[in-house]
Amino acid sequence: MNTFSVKAFGTEAKDKDLELMQIERREVTPSDIEIDILYCGVCHSDLHTARNDWGGTKYPSVPGHEIIGRITRIGSEVTKFKVGDLAGVGCLVDSCRECESCRKDLEQYCLTGSTGTYNGADQFLGGHTFGGYSEKVVVDEAFGLKIPENLDLKAVAPLLCAGITTWSPLKHWNAGPGSKVAVVGLGGLGHMAIKLAKGLGAEVTLFSRSPNKIQDALDLGADAVVISTYENEMSAVKGKFDLIIDTVPYDHDINPYISTLNISGTLVLVGYIGKMEEALFTPPMILGRRSVAGSVIGGIKETQEMLDFCGEHNILPEIEMIKMQDINTAYERMLKSDVRYRFVIDMQSLKR
Amino acid sequence: MNTFSVKAFGTEAKDKDLELMQIERREVTPSDIEIDILYCGVCHSDLHTARNDWGGTKYPSVPGHEIIGRITRIGSEVTKFKVGDLAGVGCLVDSCRECESCRKDLEQYCLTGSTGTYNGADQFLGGHTFGGYSEKVVVDEAFGLKIPENLDLKAVAPLLCAGITTWSPLKHWNAGPGSKVAVVGLGGLGHMAIKLAKGLGAEVTLFSRSPNKIQDALDLGADAVVISTYENEMSAVKGKFDLIIDTVPYDHDINPYISTLNISGTLVLVGYIGKMEEALFTPPMILGRRSVAGSVIGGIKETQEMLDFCGEHNILPEIEMIKMQDINTAYERMLKSDVRYRFVIDMQSLKR
Repeated sequence: MNTFSVKAFGTEAKDKDLELMQIERREVTPSDIEIDILYCGVCHSDLHTARNDWGGTKYPSVPGHEIIGRITRIGSEVTKFKVGDLAGVGCLVDSCRECESCRKDLEQYCLTGSTGTYNGADQFLGGHTFGGYSEKVVVDEAFGLKIPENLDLKAVAPLLCAGITTWSPLKHWNAGPGSKVAVVGLGGLGHMAIKLAKGLGAEVTLFSRSPNKIQDALDLGADAVVISTYENEMSAVKGKFDLIIDTVPYDHDINPYISTLNISGTLVLVGYIGKMEEALFTPPMILGRRSVAGSVIGGIKETQEMLDFCGEHNILPEIEMIKMQDINTAYERMLKSDVRYRFVIDMQSLKR
Repeated sequence: MNTFSVKAFGTEAKDKDLELMQIERREVTPSDIEIDILYCGVCHSDLHTARNDWGGTKYPSVPGHEIIGRITRIGSEVTKFKVGDLAGVGCLVDSCRECESCRKDLEQYCLTGSTGTYNGADQFLGGHTFGGYSEKVVVDEAFGLKIPENLDLKAVAPLLCAGITTWSPLKHWNAGPGSKVAVVGLGGLGHMAIKLAKGLGAEVTLFSRSPNKIQDALDLGADAVVISTYENEMSAVKGKFDLIIDTVPYDHDINPYISTLNISGTLVLVGYIGKMEEALFTPPMILGRRSVAGSVIGGIKETQEMLDFCGEHNILPEIEMIKMQDINTAYERMLKSDVRYRFVIDMQSLKR
């Protein structure tokens, strides 16, 4: 298969910094679009993959799955896009498109395994996929997203992971007018959960361990903040929430939050993938039909719905722009939660 | 308030056998029905309460919340029943009737606390309520259940706890034609879960640790049995079930079962109330939108629906009849799982 070379930023090993490199992209096939990347958001998964924190990273690793750009070429059978259109690519670039999940527009739960935008198995070139820390990406139009023209483009990028990751459970568990939603943790995911839940019409509360997050949360639209280490504040919201979106990315005790769920309420884990060492205490679950669930990103159809919703309601993440060359420093700052609330790379910096 | 005395079987202390005693019942108020008890099922909760296994037992303790009988008197305002009707009483004899849960016919989740048929706070006489191991019970007609006349009466009793406890989650999580349901554990609850799920049209699999339960499960209507200690059998059902009803009454590792859930599937705990020592492993939950939930008994309206359904489909538990005087031996046998699958007391034995 014919390819062409583009500049990218990636790493050759888990303990090395990211640096400039060349990668190959496939020539557009009849159903492909080629996107000139304008902005790419920086997700915690980028860092975890680059450093092989979860195992399984293939090198060289080029992260980035919050991609916004303009279409520069299209294949002969492309119908959804034309050259010059804005387009986005999120966490997925392909799936089997035939299984029960794919037929239900749940490509993120593809039963044969969807293809990640980076570190996935490249069906065209062999090897593994490379993400959005690069000049261009070529992707099947079915996995390209339309971007509302009215939005501030650079801030749209994080919607493609942080946005959809919180939108999908909010919609699946029916957040909306009249419902009470709580968000655990105020980071990239948490701040989007607040904005989206609020946009959907829910009453929104943030759980945080840190009193210095209170003003930020209120500024983002939260109706209330509960400091989770203050017992009186936790008692005051016992049995209150219909839905809790738990964005905490490390092991933590979820039992205190379960008790703040209303009857038939659900706590959805979206941040921590691993063992929860603290034992689950079943009485609040059994005696109140409460659930603990998990959720990951979202399907292409609902990602498009989320983008359209954000376009209509002008909902965007809070971002800090960086240059591609600053990525290693940005990773260090992310590890210290020193970002409000998402870094976005101005990809022009890569072209110089 | 006027009362009258009836014979009952109860215990004065956690380490004493149950024995004959006299208890007081209130005279019927305008909305009450008086039921002459014909049969009373024997639930594990009876034993746990009599022996104060969960703490909080008030003595003397008279268990029994699977009560079937005939109405001998009614209050002046009773409209749902007449003298001579069959009637049942399950786990609840009252609730606040005003909270959000009660208004949704979820009296089991009454926000101010429903009144248990035994060991509850008696709103009329003070002290605590006494259960169905007695000659008669007086209950508000709102908490009395109509019993289909076509059913074998003595077998109906366990529907009022074992039946509704499994029916409620089967209905709430939409078990029906086309859905795949698994049941963990084959005891009083488990065998009803199989029968009810099958009655609802689902494909039903039993998880058991014991190969000698296979024939029994198939006889009860299960389509398949998976021996949970056989790794190959567990692997073969990975990702299969839409709903798992976990009836195991002691601490156990639920992680292997979570992995057998289909995308968006739910495992519902109905048997074990306490800490689950084995750490919850979140990847199968997050990467498949799988849930772990709890559920307890059911509301009065859905209990009636379940009874009517069992009447239409002639679904009844498997029972072994005992005399009231055999209750202590029956408890010992229950502890050894030596019952297929529910003891029912012929309350005539108390009257002699």
